Order: sequence, then structure tokens, then C-alpha cells
Amino acid sequence: MADSKFFSRGGPFFLSRIVETLGLDLPDGADGAKVLDDVAPLSAAGPAAVSFLFNRHYVAALANTKAGAVLVEAEFSDQVPEGCIALVTRRPYYDFARTAQMFYPEPAVEPGIHPRAVVDHDAMIDERARLDAGVVVEAGAKIAADAWIGANAVIDRDVTIGRGTWVGANAYIGYADIGEHCRLHAGARVGTRGFGFAMDADGYVDIPQVGLVQIGHFVEVGANSTIDRGSGPDTVIGDGTKIDNLVQIAHNVRLGRGCVLAGQVGIAGSTVLEDFVLCGAQAGVSGHLTIRKGAQVAAKGGVIRDIEPGGKVGGLPAVPVRQWLRQHVFVNGLIQGASRKVRRRTKS
Amino acid sequence: MADSKFFSRGGPFFLSRIVETLGLDLPDGADGAKVLDDVAPLSAAGPAAVSFLFNRHYVAALANTKAGAVLVEAEFSDQVPEGCIALVTRRPYYDFARTAQMFYPEPAVEPGIHPRAVVDHDAMIDERARLDAGVVVEAGAKIAADAWIGANAVIDRDVTIGRGTWVGANAYIGYADIGEHCRLHAGARVGTRGFGFAMDADGYVDIPQVGLVQIGHFVEVGANSTIDRGSGPDTVIGDGTKIDNLVQIAHNVRLGRGCVLAGQVGIAGSTVLEDFVLCGAQAGVSGHLTIRKGAQVAAKGGVIRDIEPGGKVGGLPAVPVRQWLRQHVFVNGLIQGASRKVRRRTKS
Amino acid sequence: MADSKFFSRGGPFFLSRIVETLGLDLPDGADGAKVLDDVAPLSAAGPAAVSFLFNRHYVAALANTKAGAVLVEAEFSDQVPEGCIALVTRRPYYDFARTAQMFYPEPAVEPGIHPRAVVDHDAMIDERARLDAGVVVEAGAKIAADAWIGANAVIDRDVTIGRGTWVGANAYIGYADIGEHCRLHAGARVGTRGFGFAMDADGYVDIPQVGLVQIGHFVEVGANSTIDRGSGPDTVIGDGTKIDNLVQIAHNVRLGRGCVLAGQVGIAGSTVLEDFVLCGAQAGVSGHLTIRKGAQVAAKGGVIRDIEPGGKVGGLPAVPVRQWLRQHVFVNGLIQGASRKVRRRTKS
Repeated sequence: MADSKFFSRGGPFFLSRIVETLGLDLPDGADGAKVLDDVAPLSAAGPAAVSFLFNRHYVAALANTKAGAVLVEAEFSDQVPEGCIALVTRRPYYDFARTAQMFYPEPAVEPGIHPRAVVDHDAMIDERARLDAGVVVEAGAKIAADAWIGANAVIDRDVTIGRGTWVGANAYIGYADIGEHCRLHAGARVGTRGFGFAMDADGYVDIPQVGLVQIGHFVEVGANSTIDRGSGPDTVIGDGTKIDNLVQIAHNVRLGRGCVLAGQVGIAGSTVLEDFVLCGAQAGVSGHLTIRKGAQVAAKGGVIRDIEPGGKVGGLPAVPVRQWLRQHVFVNGLIQGASRKVRRRTKS
Repeated sequence: MADSKFFSRGGPFFLSRIVETLGLDLPDGADGAKVLDDVAPLSAAGPAAVSFLFNRHYVAALANTKAGAVLVEAEFSDQVPEGCIALVTRRPYYDFARTAQMFYPEPAVEPGIHPRAVVDHDAMIDERARLDAGVVVEAGAKIAADAWIGANAVIDRDVTIGRGTWVGANAYIGYADIGEHCRLHAGARVGTRGFGFAMDADGYVDIPQVGLVQIGHFVEVGANSTIDRGSGPDTVIGDGTKIDNLVQIAHNVRLGRGCVLAGQVGIAGSTVLEDFVLCGAQAGVSGHLTIRKGAQVAAKGGVIRDIEPGGKVGGLPAVPVRQWLRQHVFVNGLIQGASRKVRRRTKS
Repeated sequence: MADSKFFSRGGPFFLSRIVETLGLDLPDGADGAKVLDDVAPLSAAGPAAVSFLFNRHYVAALANTKAGAVLVEAEFSDQVPEGCIALVTRRPYYDFARTAQMFYPEPAVEPGIHPRAVVDHDAMIDERARLDAGVVVEAGAKIAADAWIGANAVIDRDVTIGRGTWVGANAYIGYADIGEHCRLHAGARVGTRGFGFAMDADGYVDIPQVGLVQIGHFVEVGANSTIDRGSGPDTVIGDGTKIDNLVQIAHNVRLGRGCVLAGQVGIAGSTVLEDFVLCGAQAGVSGHLTIRKGAQVAAKGGVIRDIEPGGKVGGLPAVPVRQWLRQHVFVNGLIQGASRKVRRRTKS
């Protein structure tokens, strides 16, 4: 059970309430009045906890779990041990996430402007928004209801922060419209100057970066990640896209809906990621490319060409994942073959 | 046209003023009194906008542009469509950058110390400098005219900030002398402790890091980039060097003039980059190396050896770019050859 | 000699005091009353400075040094030039570090809460702690003696900061217990939300991240590095572990004692690094792996499998270092062989 000093708790809940929330059926013979008070992994769950089976690797753990109820796909329901209720679902992990949100709800935003926040007279702060100590909000900015701006964050001129969006401590948001229910974590930088200049023997001349950053709804931006504003066009992040820590998004990039960018990914200027593209950690995508819907880049992959819809690539430069792994296996096979030859010659 | 709420505008300008500023000739038959009010890419430009042709890939766009004037090299001037003025130049992109600066000038710095900035009595702030809310300036620091320190940034003891240098929100500058007209963006860390310690069976002993960071003039440091102070010698960044976001510069590194480091590059301790070295995104250079003048490292390259002047390398470990691409093509050719053999055997 | 404006100085010291501190013997014939006032590299050291010979590459520099005394291993002691005292030790670099700490001691923490810090009534700040301007400390936080919280840093609810631990400017620490004598540098993010969510056709559902971050004693966390809190279990950093700048540590990761993670390393979720694991710069380790005691990952290595104790790996995907270098040499050998064949055919 999580430390209640740090995390707000919901529940306990009757089993009937949980299955109703998830849109599941109460299993035959199960007691809807059974009380559940936590979520936990199979191995750690006690008799009042809800757990889940994510994949078949954990079937052994399922057999030994002491959980009170387990979210499982139908094919595993007969392996749920006696005394534990099998909650059959097509998507156990997803439903576990929703159950976990019941027991650990996000705290409601307590509205108010801390007396040590600094808000320009021409900024508009909804009376249900919250601004912590040291926050600076410049002229023309608008902050909607249920928004929460963390301590020492800076909201620059004319920025819009949508309803229910949280900005972490020490973050900077400028030249941007941010949608609703986003989570921009501590130290995120949104709207900083794009890296645009012309080179010449006389030196470099900066190109004014006069585009904005447009962030949709339900977007997550990780700690210390950076999203530059556009050079003229805007940099755009689609609804529901998830960006992990220390990710770099260059100017004019357009991310579609539901993309996932793991830690330390970099997307170079003017590249487009269509909807539901996944990039593994430390992957990089060159500029001016189009990565089509549902494509996936393996961790550390270096993409220098467009990727077709659903394509999966890896390696440096990135090639289709199968080919990449084949390269690896093949070269090592050659080396071993060569070593055997050398050994044979040495022996003979 | 950029959002005038966010960006200050210059102009409109007569064509004669623009060509004069760029040092170009007014084309024969062109009306110097033609009024221009913006810059734009070829495809988006309207009849009062200046555009440019950067390379031959965009010749088709040139033919269809509605721009009022286009900066082009001489060889393309006859492909500029009727009604559009061809402004012939040897460097269209560079001149476009300068034109863009005319229409989108940086705002003048409005001097003043925000009442919620915290300035030590022993700091010296020029009366023409600007300090935003929440800025902290420690004793002995000197901030010159036209410098602009963004909200909640921290200028540590005895730091010097040169004339016209801007420090972004939430940045930290310590143990450093910063030249004139630099741009250190939001969250940049300059002068933090170098990663220096001696290892032993008894554990690690920190080596005092008693060098500084010396940054020249017209240097750009991207958002959330980190530059450690030297261990005894200084860490040095030469004039005009451009550093993108999330770049790591370790202690004692010396970057020459006009280097360009793209996003998420890392330079390990005591390495020297001579003038005009370029590093593509996510490249890394090992410690104690010398990368000679004008060398280039491809994105994601991992450099473990010195590079000769003008050398171009890529891959992991980095080799000359041609060799790197040959490796890639060669291995894939071998795999395909092997697959063909396997298929043949299977068939026969 | 370091700039005394920036760095506090110790000494000068008698030679006898230095050898006593290091636990060494005063060399035969050496004058214990000789006065020494600095440390320096061999090439820069003057007659009142202590230097050291780290490895045999610098033996030439040893012969020409003007240092007053040099820490050397026994085998090199007869190459120390006349007039320079050879201080024989098994670990010259380690002893140099300790000597450097004598001449450049860390400043004592001057206690006090800056009037422009913001401290919640329910936070407990030891009277010997120091809080700089703009610091925000939330309810329930405890900050011990000799701790130093830098300007504009944020210490969130219920966090514990141990004795003698320093937190850099603009850092954020939340959901965490931090041990004693740690150094968390400027812009570090500790305890931010782990990147945990369930995907489904309906979109993503966040999984509450209800674990903490547990950081031991004598831990270093570099500038702008990020350490996410656990999802249920805690994220754990063992005693004496050294983390460089811009490093990403995902949720539930467990680092043992004395690990070293160089700049821009990334460790994915739930991975375990046992004691004394070393990761070179920009290396990445996939999730749910176990890297056993003393293993080493070369810079930029991409680890996708467990590593046995003391194993050394490199490349992408990472393989044993020998094999990785062999791959590289082998492929280039093949290419050269192929080129020779092509040339021969062309000739014949």
C-alpha cells in the first residue's frame, strides 16, 4: 500500500462498485459486497487487493497470488486460485489502471493564488485555478479553471493554459496554447527559440522564430523535456500524446494524436509523426521526414528516411526491425565462422 | 504572418530599403517603391511577401509562388514567375534571415529590476539591464546594459553577464564569465560541478572543480543544456558557437568559434573542438580528443578518435562517413546474398 | 591557481601535514616543514604545488615538472626530477583528490533562511540549514542541519533532506527521502511522475504512480537529470552512486551502491543495477533487466539483455565489448576485401 502521507486515497469499495465502474459483469457466485481497499501486483497483493494478469509470463504468479480479485482475460480465468475472484475482461491492464485510479485518485485542485506568486495585472486567472509560491505569470496569459501551476514555474506573455492542465515546478511555458487536462512536468520548456539560423563565411544570422507551440488535450510532457516554438509554422502536439523525460522536440515538428515518445528521444525540425507513432528511448528522427500512422522506432534507432504506416524500424541508420536484427545475428555469425576457420588453420 | 500578439513587427518596407540593407542591387525594371510587409516560404507567400529559394528541390514551388519578391541565386533567376521580382544573391538563405530580422526585430530590452527580483547589495546591475520577477542575483555579479535576465533565473556569485546577453527563465549561471549578445535559453545550467572524482576500494573522493566557464560573444545555449565548470582549467565556448537543447558539455571542454552542436549532443571531459566543428543531433564525443577545424560528426555518431580538419564521420564507433554508409550497404548486401543462397538451396 | 574570488582556499600546509593526512610516510631526506600552497597538473605545477602521476602516458611530463612534490606509484619514483619530492603511494589519483580537497575545501554552510524563501508552517527546517532566496518548501518537509537548498529550488510536501545534503538552484525534489551528504545539482528533478499508462483503442489511461524515490548517502545527481518516483515500489539510488548531467532514471529502477552513470545515460523502468555498475555516456539500458555487480556498459551502448557480474558490453544492441569491436573490425575488413576484389576485376 502506498504511503498515505504522500498520496491521497479512495475507497475502500465494494466489488460491485468496481465491476460497475469498469463495465464488467459481477462473476457468478461472487459477493458484490466484498470490500476491496487497494491495488497491487500479483505477488504482493493481499486478500483485500485487486490485481491483474498482464501476460502469460506471470501465470505462475497467478497461481500463488493472495489477491482478493484478479483482472484476467477469459483464457486464464480457470487458473485463478480458489478464494480469489476472477474478473474477466478483454483488457486487464487497462482496467487495472482504471481501478488504480479509483484507489489513488488525483487530488482535487485547491484553488487560490499564493501570495508569493507574481501575476501581471493583464493576466486572467480563473478563480478556480491554483498558482503556487514563486509562480510568475506575464501579461495576457490566461489560466483556466482547475489548472495548477507549480512553484516557481513561469507562464510567459499571452500563453493559454486550458482547464484542468497542470504545470510542474520550475517549468517554463511561452509562445504557446496548451489544451485541457495536460500534464507538463517539472522543468519542461515549451516555446523556447527554435534552433534556426543561416550560416555563411561571415558567421551565423539567426532566423526569427515566429511560430508558436500548439498542444492539444490530455498531453503529457516529461520532466526537463524541451519543445521549441515554430519558425513560422507552429510546432504541434496532438491530443493524448505522451512524452517522457528529457525529450527534445524541434521547431515545426508535428506530432499526431496518441504518439508515445520514451525518455531522451529527439525529433528534428519539421518532421511529422502521424497518429499513434511510438519511439523507444533515445531514438532520434532526422528533420523533414514523415513517420506514418502507427509506425514504431526501436530504442536508440536513428531514423533517416520516411516510415510507412505501421512500419517498425531499428538500428543506426534505422532499417526494418527484422533486417536490423538479421544484420546483428549475421555479422556475429560471420565472425564466429571466421574464428572457426582461423582455429582450424591453426590446428592443421 | 506571425501572431502579432506574440511577436513584434517591423516594416512595411520599400523594396529599395530591403535591397540596400542586404547590399544587393535593385533589379532592372523593378519598382523600388514597391511595399513589402512580411517574409514567408514560397508556397505561403502573398504578393507583399519576400521569399527565397534555398535549393533546387524547391524549383517547382518557385514556379508557382505568389511572392512579391524572391531571393535566388543567379542560375534560378529566370525561373522566377512573372509578377515576382527576382532578387539575385549568392546566399539566398542568409539574406532571407536578414530580411526576416527586419520584419521581426528582437524587442528592445525595457530596463528595470522587477520589485520581486532579489539582488544582493554587492551585485552591480547596469541601469539599462532588465531583471524579471523572481530573479536571484548573488554578491559580486555584474550584469551589463541591455542584458535581460528571465523570470526565476539565478545568477550566482561573481558571475559576469555581458552587454546584450539574454538569460532565459529558470536558468542557472554560476562560476562563469558570459560575453556579449549571448542567448542562454530557459533552464540552461552553466557552471555546475564537473563530474570529477577518484575511485578506490574505499569509495569515491570528489576532486574539487575549481575552474570556471568562459563563454564568448554571440553564443547560443539551448534550453536545459548543461555546461560544467572546469576542474582547474576552464571550460571554454568560443564566439558565435551555437548549442541546441539538452546538450551536455563536460568540464574542461574547449569549443572553438562557430561550432554547431545539435540537440542532445554530448562532449566528454577535456575534449577540444576547433572552429566550425558541426555535431549532428545525439552525437557523442569521448573525452580527451581533438576534433579539428571544420570536422563534422553525423547525428548519433560516437567519436572515439581524433578527427582531422574537415573530416566527416558517422556511426558507432564513428568512422569516415563514406565507410560508415558502406558498412551499412555492405552488410545488408551480404544478408540479401545469403538469403538468396538459402532460398536457392530450399528450392533445389 | 584557481580564482580565489570563486573558490575558498585552504592552506598553505607543511608537507608533514599533507603526508600525515594521506597516511603516507615522509620520504627520506624530505623537509617536513616545506610549505605547499596548491595542487596542479604536472605541466602547470610550480615549486609550491603538489602534483601527481596518474598513468605512464605522462612520464615525460613528470621528467619536466616543476612541482614541489608529486604523488607517484613506487615504480615511477626514481623518475621524479631533482628538487621535486616523490610521495610514494599505491593510489596517486585518489590521494591527489584528497590533497586537492585540503587546498579547496567546500565552504561551510552559513545557516539561515533567506527572507525571500517561502517555507510552509508545517515544514521543519533545522536551524543549521541554509535556504536561499526563492526556495519553496511545502508542508511536512524536513531539512536537516548543514543542508543547503539553492535559490528557487522547490522541496515538495513531506520530503526529507538529510544532513549535509545540497540541492542546487532551480531543482525540484518531491515524493522522496534524500540521505546525507548528497549533491543534487541545479535543475535536477527527483520524484516526478513515472511514465506509466495503459494503452487501448480508447486511448491511454494513466496508472497512478504511488511509489517514492529513496536516495542513499553521498549520492550525486547531475544538473538537469531526472529520477521518476516508483509506480508502487520505490525508485532506489544506493549510497555513493554518482549520476552525471541529463541522465534519465525511470520508475522502479534500483541502482546499487557506487554505481557511476555518465552524462545522458538512460535507465528504463524496473531495471536493477547492482553495486559498482558503470555506464558510459549516452548508454541506455532497457526495462526489467538486471545488470550484475561491477558490470560496465560502453558509451552509447544499448543494453537489451541482463549482464553477468563484471561483464563489459558495448554496441547496439550491446554485446560483449570484445565481440563488438570484432564486429567493427570484421565488417571493415570485409569491405576492404570486397573493394580489393572489385579493383582486381576492374583491372583484369
